[in-house]
Amino acid sequence: MSVVCFGELLLRLKAPAFERILQSPSFEATFCGSEANVAVDLACWNEQVSFISALPKNEIGNAAIKELAGWGVDISQVVREEGRLGIFYLEAGANQRPSRVIYDRENSVFTKINAEKICWDQVFSGKKWFHISGITPAVSKEAALMTIHAAEEAEKRGLTISCDLNYRNTLWKYGVSPETVMKQLVTHTHVLIANEEDIQCCLGFGEKKNIAGRLDDERYCNLCKAVMIQFPNIQAIAITLRESYGANHNDWSACAYSGNTFIRSSKYSINDIVDRVGAGDCFAAGIIYGYINRMTLSQSLEFATAASCLKHSIPGDFARISVNEINCLVQGNASGRVER
Amino acid sequence: MSVVCFGELLLRLKAPAFERILQSPSFEATFCGSEANVAVDLACWNEQVSFISALPKNEIGNAAIKELAGWGVDISQVVREEGRLGIFYLEAGANQRPSRVIYDRENSVFTKINAEKICWDQVFSGKKWFHISGITPAVSKEAALMTIHAAEEAEKRGLTISCDLNYRNTLWKYGVSPETVMKQLVTHTHVLIANEEDIQCCLGFGEKKNIAGRLDDERYCNLCKAVMIQFPNIQAIAITLRESYGANHNDWSACAYSGNTFIRSSKYSINDIVDRVGAGDCFAAGIIYGYINRMTLSQSLEFATAASCLKHSIPGDFARISVNEINCLVQGNASGRVER
Amino acid sequence: MSVVCFGELLLRLKAPAFERILQSPSFEATFCGSEANVAVDLACWNEQVSFISALPKNEIGNAAIKELAGWGVDISQVVREEGRLGIFYLEAGANQRPSRVIYDRENSVFTKINAEKICWDQVFSGKKWFHISGITPAVSKEAALMTIHAAEEAEKRGLTISCDLNYRNTLWKYGVSPETVMKQLVTHTHVLIANEEDIQCCLGFGEKKNIAGRLDDERYCNLCKAVMIQFPNIQAIAITLRESYGANHNDWSACAYSGNTFIRSSKYSINDIVDRVGAGDCFAAGIIYGYINRMTLSQSLEFATAASCLKHSIPGDFARISVNEINCLVQGNASGRVER
Amino acid sequence: MSVVCFGELLLRLKAPAFERILQSPSFEATFCGSEANVAVDLACWNEQVSFISALPKNEIGNAAIKELAGWGVDISQVVREEGRLGIFYLEAGANQRPSRVIYDRENSVFTKINAEKICWDQVFSGKKWFHISGITPAVSKEAALMTIHAAEEAEKRGLTISCDLNYRNTLWKYGVSPETVMKQLVTHTHVLIANEEDIQCCLGFGEKKNIAGRLDDERYCNLCKAVMIQFPNIQAIAITLRESYGANHNDWSACAYSGNTFIRSSKYSINDIVDRVGAGDCFAAGIIYGYINRMTLSQSLEFATAASCLKHSIPGDFARISVNEINCLVQGNASGRVER
Amino acid sequence: MSVVCFGELLLRLKAPAFERILQSPSFEATFCGSEANVAVDLACWNEQVSFISALPKNEIGNAAIKELAGWGVDISQVVREEGRLGIFYLEAGANQRPSRVIYDRENSVFTKINAEKICWDQVFSGKKWFHISGITPAVSKEAALMTIHAAEEAEKRGLTISCDLNYRNTLWKYGVSPETVMKQLVTHTHVLIANEEDIQCCLGFGEKKNIAGRLDDERYCNLCKAVMIQFPNIQAIAITLRESYGANHNDWSACAYSGNTFIRSSKYSINDIVDRVGAGDCFAAGIIYGYINRMTLSQSLEFATAASCLKHSIPGDFARISVNEINCLVQGNASGRVER
Amino acid sequence: MSVVCFGELLLRLKAPAFERILQSPSFEATFCGSEANVAVDLACWNEQVSFISALPKNEIGNAAIKELAGWGVDISQVVREEGRLGIFYLEAGANQRPSRVIYDRENSVFTKINAEKICWDQVFSGKKWFHISGITPAVSKEAALMTIHAAEEAEKRGLTISCDLNYRNTLWKYGVSPETVMKQLVTHTHVLIANEEDIQCCLGFGEKKNIAGRLDDERYCNLCKAVMIQFPNIQAIAITLRESYGANHNDWSACAYSGNTFIRSSKYSINDIVDRVGAGDCFAAGIIYGYINRMTLSQSLEFATAASCLKHSIPGDFARISVNEINCLVQGNASGRVER
Repeated sequence: MSVVCFGELLLRLKAPAFERILQSPSFEATFCGSEANVAVDLACWNEQVSFISALPKNEIGNAAIKELAGWGVDISQVVREEGRLGIFYLEAGANQRPSRVIYDRENSVFTKINAEKICWDQVFSGKKWFHISGITPAVSKEAALMTIHAAEEAEKRGLTISCDLNYRNTLWKYGVSPETVMKQLVTHTHVLIANEEDIQCCLGFGEKKNIAGRLDDERYCNLCKAVMIQFPNIQAIAITLRESYGANHNDWSACAYSGNTFIRSSKYSINDIVDRVGAGDCFAAGIIYGYINRMTLSQSLEFATAASCLKHSIPGDFARISVNEINCLVQGNASGRVER
Repeated sequence: MSVVCFGELLLRLKAPAFERILQSPSFEATFCGSEANVAVDLACWNEQVSFISALPKNEIGNAAIKELAGWGVDISQVVREEGRLGIFYLEAGANQRPSRVIYDRENSVFTKINAEKICWDQVFSGKKWFHISGITPAVSKEAALMTIHAAEEAEKRGLTISCDLNYRNTLWKYGVSPETVMKQLVTHTHVLIANEEDIQCCLGFGEKKNIAGRLDDERYCNLCKAVMIQFPNIQAIAITLRESYGANHNDWSACAYSGNTFIRSSKYSINDIVDRVGAGDCFAAGIIYGYINRMTLSQSLEFATAASCLKHSIPGDFARISVNEINCLVQGNASGRVER
Repeated sequence: MSVVCFGELLLRLKAPAFERILQSPSFEATFCGSEANVAVDLACWNEQVSFISALPKNEIGNAAIKELAGWGVDISQVVREEGRLGIFYLEAGANQRPSRVIYDRENSVFTKINAEKICWDQVFSGKKWFHISGITPAVSKEAALMTIHAAEEAEKRGLTISCDLNYRNTLWKYGVSPETVMKQLVTHTHVLIANEEDIQCCLGFGEKKNIAGRLDDERYCNLCKAVMIQFPNIQAIAITLRESYGANHNDWSACAYSGNTFIRSSKYSINDIVDRVGAGDCFAAGIIYGYINRMTLSQSLEFATAASCLKHSIPGDFARISVNEINCLVQGNASGRVER
Repeated sequence: MSVVCFGELLLRLKAPAFERILQSPSFEATFCGSEANVAVDLACWNEQVSFISALPKNEIGNAAIKELAGWGVDISQVVREEGRLGIFYLEAGANQRPSRVIYDRENSVFTKINAEKICWDQVFSGKKWFHISGITPAVSKEAALMTIHAAEEAEKRGLTISCDLNYRNTLWKYGVSPETVMKQLVTHTHVLIANEEDIQCCLGFGEKKNIAGRLDDERYCNLCKAVMIQFPNIQAIAITLRESYGANHNDWSACAYSGNTFIRSSKYSINDIVDRVGAGDCFAAGIIYGYINRMTLSQSLEFATAASCLKHSIPGDFARISVNEINCLVQGNASGRVER
Repeated sequence: MSVVCFGELLLRLKAPAFERILQSPSFEATFCGSEANVAVDLACWNEQVSFISALPKNEIGNAAIKELAGWGVDISQVVREEGRLGIFYLEAGANQRPSRVIYDRENSVFTKINAEKICWDQVFSGKKWFHISGITPAVSKEAALMTIHAAEEAEKRGLTISCDLNYRNTLWKYGVSPETVMKQLVTHTHVLIANEEDIQCCLGFGEKKNIAGRLDDERYCNLCKAVMIQFPNIQAIAITLRESYGANHNDWSACAYSGNTFIRSSKYSINDIVDRVGAGDCFAAGIIYGYINRMTLSQSLEFATAASCLKHSIPGDFARISVNEINCLVQGNASGRVER
Repeated sequence: MSVVCFGELLLRLKAPAFERILQSPSFEATFCGSEANVAVDLACWNEQVSFISALPKNEIGNAAIKELAGWGVDISQVVREEGRLGIFYLEAGANQRPSRVIYDRENSVFTKINAEKICWDQVFSGKKWFHISGITPAVSKEAALMTIHAAEEAEKRGLTISCDLNYRNTLWKYGVSPETVMKQLVTHTHVLIANEEDIQCCLGFGEKKNIAGRLDDERYCNLCKAVMIQFPNIQAIAITLRESYGANHNDWSACAYSGNTFIRSSKYSINDIVDRVGAGDCFAAGIIYGYINRMTLSQSLEFATAASCLKHSIPGDFARISVNEINCLVQGNASGRVER
C-alpha cells in the first residue's frame, strides 16, 4: 500500500548548537516541511511514498531532490519551476528560552504552483493513502485551492485521506480565515491528526486553554466526539499533547478516538531534547504507518507516540529512527543503555 | 539617560563543547569582561552606553573594538596602546565537573593603563550612570587607584554609581587586601550588586556560609541592613543567589533591599545550562536597566533575574536576549515552546 | 609500582554531537579500548604504565602510538604488524534513544597477534600489576589463549592481576562459551571488577535480573561471597551499578567485597551525560590506583566511583580528570561551580 | 569628508571551501552587497561612511546592522521593514570551473523600499560624496526610480557622485532596458567606475569583445573619450581589467581617464585567488578614498588597484585590508614574506 | 539506454584540508569506489544506471545506499550481508608531497560476495551497457571469478562492455598475476579505458616508461594497435595521460583509437587541484556517456576529458558537474569567470 | 647519538584557512617554537631528542607536554612554573598578502626561567648534540645569559653545537644589540644555520641585499669564508634561500660550506604553499640529522632542503614527514602522484 504526501519543502537554516541566529557566521543547512517529513519518515520505515510539491529549477532544488530520493521517496512527480525555495531559519532554545523560527517562505515556487502542472490521475494511480496538512492551505490562496482540489481527487479515487491540522498563526496572511478553509478540507478527511490548539483554531471547537495544561480525558474525549458529529467522514482522531516544562524538557503523549473507544498512549518524559521540530510529523507518520500495517488503533497510537518521542533525540526534521527501535521503546525499553 | 562602563575586556578562548582545554586543537574565540558584558547587554536593550578601557593597538584589539561597536557600544574613548590583551581560557563543566577558568591576564595593556590617557571630563559629559566592578581594582594597583579616581570623578559630576563586587580570589595578587580597596570604592557606590560571598570577602560582613546553601530571608535582610548602616550612601543592594546542583543544573534567584523593603525575586530552575558565564553581569545590567527606565525595585529585580536566567541559555558572555524576551519570562512564560 | 595493561586498541569513529552515524559527512576520530583506557587513566594520574598490544604498521597505528605516548604510557613493547586497526563506530544516544556501537574489529592485527612477538619476561620485568579484561579473550581464539598465557606468566612473576569481566555479547563469535574461558582466566585473578550482568554471563553466578534494577546489598554481598568461594585466589571484588533512566540520565554507584567486609560507595546522579563510554574502565583504573597507593578498600571504592562519575562529563573514552579533581568530588564538592 | 552609500545588502550563503552548493549540510553566512562593500571598505580605512538601505525587522536584519556598525559604518538611517533579506548563494570555483552565484533576492524589503521612508535632506546633511551602483536600478522599478531620485538630490546639494556601472545580466527583469536607466543615472555622475563590458551593456559604447581579452590602451582611451563626450558631467572614468586564466588565476589591472590624461595601473598576477567577490567594490572604494584624500588620479588608481588585488586574498566580500597594507603593495612589496 | 556498474563501494575517510591522517581528530566521511563513481557520474548526467555490489547490513551500509539512491542510481539489486564495508583512508598532498591512500578493505562483504546472491538475468534485463574495472578482480579470487562471470553473462545478452583497467599494485594480493586475470577479462571488453601503465601492468604491452613522461602520439597509437590486434573484440580504446608537476598541478589529456583513427583530446593545465581522486572514473563515465548519446569518438573523448578535468575542482570522488558545465568547457570556456 | 634542544615553546593560535585574525570566532590551536620544532622533527625521524624549556604549571602547559611526549621527545627535564605560555597569533597570507604573526610572548614563564632550575650536568649526560637558535637570546636578558651559559656547558662536555641564527627584528627589545649577543654565542657554535639576512643582522657580515634576490654562488661562498675566518670554531655553515614570489609561491634552496667546499642544493619551486612556518626549523633538523647519520655535507644539505621543502605542504609548525618521504624527494620524485 503506498502513500502520497503533498506539501511544501523548505530549506532549514539552523544556527549551530544553542547559538542565536548569526551569532557565528554559519548555518546548518537541511531540508524540512511537514508533509516532506511524513514522507521521509514513512520511507525510512520501508513504506512506498511519493512526494508531490514544487521545487526551484536550480542547485537548491536539486539538493532537495537528492535528499528525498536518498530516503527512497518517489520524487518523479515533483514540479520544477524557476523561482525560489522557501527558508525556515531556526535557533534552538534551551531552558526557559524557546526555540525560534523565522519564516522566509513567501513567493516560493510552491506558493505559486500551477495546478495544471500536476496530473492527479497519474499521482494517485495505484496509491491508497493521501496525506496533507493545514500548513499548505495557509501559505497562499492558490495552495489552499489546490489542497482542497487534491483531496477531492483523492477521495474520488478511494484513497484514505489523513490531515494534520498543524495550525500556524503566523502564516494564513492572504485574507481568509483558517476555519473557512480547514473546515472544508476536513470534510474530505478520514484520519484527523491534531493537537488541542489546532482543533480550536482550525475547526472552532473547545475553549481556549492554558497551553501547558494537563491532558483531561473527559474533555479530550468530548472534543473528539463533537468533531466526529460535525464531520462524520472522520474515522479516527489522534491528538498529541506536549506538556512543556522548558525548551529541553517536555512530557509527550497522545490520545485517539475512533467513534467508539477513546484511548490514551503511554507518556514519555523527555528531559534533554535534542530537536523537537518534526516530532508532530513523525507522530502523523506513525499513525499512517499503523493503519497501513493493519495495527489496532491502540497499537498505532503507541507506535506513533514512541516514534515521535524518539524523534526528539535526533537533530534535523527527519526522524531517522527504525521500526525496530520504535518497537523497542513501545515494549518498554527506555533505559537508554548503550547497544553494542 | 546614558551609561558609562569602565573595566577590562579579555579574549575568551573556550574549548569546544564539553571538551577539556586543548583536548582538540581549537578554541572558540570571543570577548568577555564583566563591565564589557554589562555594556553590551545594555546596548542590546537599546540603551546608550560607552565603554572605557584600554586595548592593544593590534588586530586583536581591533577585533574587540569591532565587536563592541557592532552592539552599538560607544568605543570612541577606548585607549589603544602597544601591548597585549588579557586571556580568559575556559572549559565548560558538566554534571559534577565544574567549569574551569584559567586567567592569563597579567601585564595586559589594561593593567598598565595610564590614568592621563582618559579624560573623565569628556567621558562623563552628558552621562547619568557609571558602572564598575570589583574585578578592576583586583588586577593591579594602578587599576585600583584608577577605579577609585573614576568613581570620585563620577560622583563629583552627579552620576549614579553602581558597583558589582564580583570577588575573584585568584586575582588580588598585588599585595593589598580586597577589603581595604573595596570598602573605599563602596563609599562612592549608590547601587550595590553582589552575592553573599562577595559581601563577606569584599566588605567583611556575615559569616562563612556553605556556598550551596539556601537563601534565608532574614539573614539576607540583616546583611543588607548592616551594609547600609555602614555605607549610608548606598540606595539599594541587589543580591543574587545561585543554588548549584551541578554544572548543568542551578536554581537562580535574587533579592533586593532599598533601605525600607526587602524583596525576593522569582526563582528559576535552570536544568540544562548552556553557558553560565556572564549571568551575573546580565543581572547587573538588568538592575541598571530597571533604574534607568524608572521601574520599581521589584520590577527591576524581576527583570534582572529573568534576564540573567535567560543568559544561561546563550553561549558566550553576552546575554543576546531582547527586552521583549525578558518580559515574556517575567510574565511567566517559561514553557520554552517553539515560537514560529 | 608500575602497571602493565594488555588488550586491543581501536579507532573510535563517532558521529558529531547527537547525530546518527553518517547523518553528516564526518566522524570525530579518537582511540579507545578497555585496557588502553585503563592505561591512559592511570598514566594521567602519574602512574607508570606500559601498554602491550599489536598495532598496524601504518599512519593509523602511528597516530595511536602518538596518542598513548603523549599521555606518558610506555609503548615501547607494542608489536607493529602489517594489517588493520579495528574500528568502533559510535553514535551518542539521548533521552529514550540509546547510544549505539557498531564494531568493525574482525581481522585486526590484534586478533592475529603472534604470541612469540611478545617477550613476557621483558614486559613484566620490574612490574607489579597486570590488568586485563574479558574483551580480549572474546575477540579471537588466539587472543583468548594469549590472555590466559599472559596471566600465567604474570602470576609466575608475582604480579597482582586485575581482571575486568567486561562481558560483550556481540563479541565471542569464535565458538567457545564465555564461561569456559573466563572461568579459567579468573583463576589467575586477584582483583575482580565487574557488573552484575558480567558475573552472570562470564561466571554463571546469580539469576537474570532486570538490568535497570536497584542495588540490593544482600543480594550483591551474597554474589560476591559465592564468587570468592569458587575462586579463593580473588582478594577483592568491585562491582559497579548503573541505574539507567535514559541515555542522558544515570545513577552511578559501586560496591566492593574483600572477603570480610562488604561496602557500598556514594551514589552519583548524573543528569546530563556527555559520554559514558570508558566510565567502567575509569572505575577499574580507580580501583587499581587505590591499591597501588595503599588506600583502604573503602577509599579505593570512593576514588574509583568518583573518578568514573566524572568520566561521564568528558567526551572520548579517556577520563582526562586529575587526581585532585577526583578527590574534590570524593570530599563532597559536587556543586559544579565555576573554578576561576 | 564623509561618504554616503546607497544600495541593497544581502545574506551571502557560501558552500564550504570548494564544495558545490549543499554538498555538505552547511553554509558560511556573511553579508554582502556592492555598495555595502564599498561602505565597509571605506570605514575600514577610517573614512566616515553612512549606509542607506532597507533591512528586515528581524534577527537577520539585526545581524546585518551589527556587522555594519562593527566596522564603524553609520547605520542610523537604515529603514527597517517587515519582510525578507535577499540571499546570494555562492560556490567557489577552482581551475576551469567558475564560481557560481544563485540570486534569491526578489521581493526583498529593499526592492519594495518606500521612497518616503528616507529623508534625503537628513541623509546628505554634511556629506560630500554619494556612491551608487548599477545593481540597485536593476533590482526593481521602485529601486531604479529611487536611485535616480537620490542622485538628483545629492547633485542638488553639491555632493560628488560616483557610480559603479556593475552590469548584472541576470537582474534587470522588470521590463526596462539597462541602457535607458543607466544613461539617465550617468548624467548625474562625476566619477564613473566600470569594466569594458559594463560600458557596452549599460551605456551602449564599444563593440562586443572577447571577455578574456587583453587591455589595449588605445581602444580603452578612445572608449573613455567617447563616454566623456556624451556625458560631460563625468570628471573621471576608472576601468578595471580582469584577465581570467581560470577560477584561481587572474591578472588584475586598471586604467583611468580624466579628460586629459589616460593612465594605466600596475598589473598584478593573482595565482591562488581566495575570494574574488567584492574586488570590484574594493576598487571603487579605493578610487573614492583617493579622491577624498586628495591623491592624484594616478595615485588613486594605484591605490585602488592594489587594494582590490589584496581583496582577492581575503574570504568574504569585505576587503579587510589596512591602508598601510595597501601602501606596502603600491610601493612594490608583493613578495608575500611572513611579517612578524 | 541504461547502464549497469559492478564493483565495490568503500567508505572514504579523509583528513581535513591538507592535514596528515589523524593530525587532528576528525575525518571527512564520504563514499567512493571506481565503479560507484562511474554510476553516480552517469546518474548525475541523467542516465539510467544500476549499481551491483554487496554492502553490510548496518548503518554504514544504509548510508551508502542513501547516497547512491540520492543520485538516482538504482540500488534495488545491491546485496546486503552481515560484515564490514571496506575503508579508503586518504590524505591530500600538496606541492611535492603526494596524496596518500591507505586501504583497509580486506574481508569486506564485497570480497566475500556470494555469486548466487546476484541474479544476472534480472540485473541485465533491459540493460544495454555493462561497466567494470580492474579493481574488482584485484580484491579477491571470488571477486575475480565473479567479474569474469558477469562479463560473460553480459556478453551473452548483447550488452556493450566497458572495462577500465585501473591497475592498483597494492591490491592483487591473493596469488594470481594481474595479467592472467585481466587478459581474460579483456576478451569480453568492447570499450577499453586505461592509462599507459595500466596497459603495461594488466596486459603486458609496452615498455616501462617514465610515468611523468609526455604523450608521444606514435607510441600511443602503436600501443593501441597492438592491443586491438590481440583483442579484436575491442572496438575502441581511450587512454588518459596525467602529466604530474606536483600534487596541485597536473596537465590532463587523453587519446583514443577506434581501429582506424587515432585522436587526441585537448589538454588542460590544472594548477590548483582540489581533489583528483575519481577523475579517471569520471573520464570513463564520459566515454560511456558519449557512446550512449551517439557522439562521435572525438566528441566522446572531448566530453570525457573536459568532464574529468572539471572533476579535479570538486572535493570527493563524485564529479558533481552537469552536462551543461562540461559542454561549456568543451566549447572552450575555461576562464573560470564568476557565473551570476 | 642523542640531541638536546633548548628554547621556548609557544601556543600557536591561527585564524582558520586564509581568514584574517578573528574574522570568524575561532582559532586553530597548536604548539610551535623554533627549537621545539627541531626537536619534534628529529623525534619524528626516530632520533633520540630531549627538549629543555620552561612551561606553565597549568592545563596549557600540560597540553604542550602531551604534544611533545606524543612525538617521543624526552620532556623529563622541562621546568614547570606558575605563569603563562607565550602566544603566537598567526594568519596565513595568500598571493600578494603576506602571512602575519603577532607575538604575545612577553612575561612568559620561559622568559623568567630560573637558571638554577636546570641541571646541565643531567641534561647533557650521555648526549652528543646541542641545538639552540637566535630566538632564545632575543626574548630576554635572562634567556640570553642562559643560552650562552648552556652553550658553554655543552662545549665543556664535548657536544657538537648547532645554532640557527633565526633573526627576528621585532624581538630583541631588552636593550642589547643582536650582534653583541649573537657573536658571543657563535663562538661556541660548530654548525651554523642561517639565511643571508640573519648573517647580516646577527653577525654584521655582508651588505643589505634585496630580500627577494637570487642566490649568487660567489657572493654566498665569500660570505661563508668571511664568517669562518672570524669564527674558526665553525665547522660548517648551511644557508637557506627563499625566493618569494608571493605568499603561496616560493622557490626554496640552500647552500653549504665546510671550509673547503661550497655546495648548492637542488632548488624546489613550491607553488601552493600550505604553511611555510617551521620550514627553516625543519631545514636545521635536516642538517643535524645528516650529521648524526654520518651523511656527507652534500647529502645532508639535500636531505635538509628536501625535508624543509616538504614541510611547506603541511599545516602547523611540525614537519610530519618521514625519512622515507624525504628520501623519495631527494631521489627526484617530485611529481606528487597519488600513493596507494
